[in-house]
Amino acid sequence: MAMQQARSVATEETHSLISADKVEGTPVYNPQGEKLGTVHSIMIDKLSGKVAYAVMSFGGFMGIGDRYHPLPWSVLTYDTQKGGYTVDLDRGTLEKAPTYARGETPDWGDRTWGEQLHRHYGARAYWE
Amino acid sequence: MAMQQARSVATEETHSLISADKVEGTPVYNPQGEKLGTVHSIMIDKLSGKVAYAVMSFGGFMGIGDRYHPLPWSVLTYDTQKGGYTVDLDRGTLEKAPTYARGETPDWGDRTWGEQLHRHYGARAYWE
Repeated sequence: MAMQQARSVATEETHSLISADKVEGTPVYNPQGEKLGTVHSIMIDKLSGKVAYAVMSFGGFMGIGDRYHPLPWSVLTYDTQKGGYTVDLDRGTLEKAPTYARGETPDWGDRTWGEQLHRHYGARAYWE
Repeated sequence: MAMQQARSVATEETHSLISADKVEGTPVYNPQGEKLGTVHSIMIDKLSGKVAYAVMSFGGFMGIGDRYHPLPWSVLTYDTQKGGYTVDLDRGTLEKAPTYARGETPDWGDRTWGEQLHRHYGARAYWE
């Protein structure tokens, strides 16, 4: 990564690419710097090639256990200092968010479900 | 996936999401149905959340060996029957394409390199 490190921070932030592999397992923090969970998987819209959701696993945070939280990609901000993503979400928003259990598969193609999910997080739908 | 299978093909094609995990390892074919290689990794543009490249590993195809071919996401078409991607590329285009060796890291942020790569495949740059 020597070539990339030589580039300015500004360039890094506007142009940088990351391997999907590397996003998976990346920690997610709240603005107070507390770790909320890690990115479990990334859902890609096949047609547009846009990342639709980063699915966060909380790993027991707040007793939620093994449930998965699909987060609209747009609510994640990468923090180079922390080496992870920050989401500006309060506890209540997370507790009431749509989730699914390990072993379940949500109907990703259901636009009504998708719209509710994006609205919950105050995010614009990825297909708009 | 029962719920998804019940949906019409048209809906599947327009709305379907796929996990980045599942894309990695997916075979890539030419229009004649010959396997060219497999998707080794996916590069995501952090800022826009768009998939920039599917990096294909040829695994020895045409003697190329362990070199990686970043393909603009837009040149890949998913073929549900084959369970893989089809790229409409001839041998010459692939042989002359930009590649990198295992252990190397291209300067993904280099727009001149990125432009050349997209032009090579006749694709529009992911940042346009």
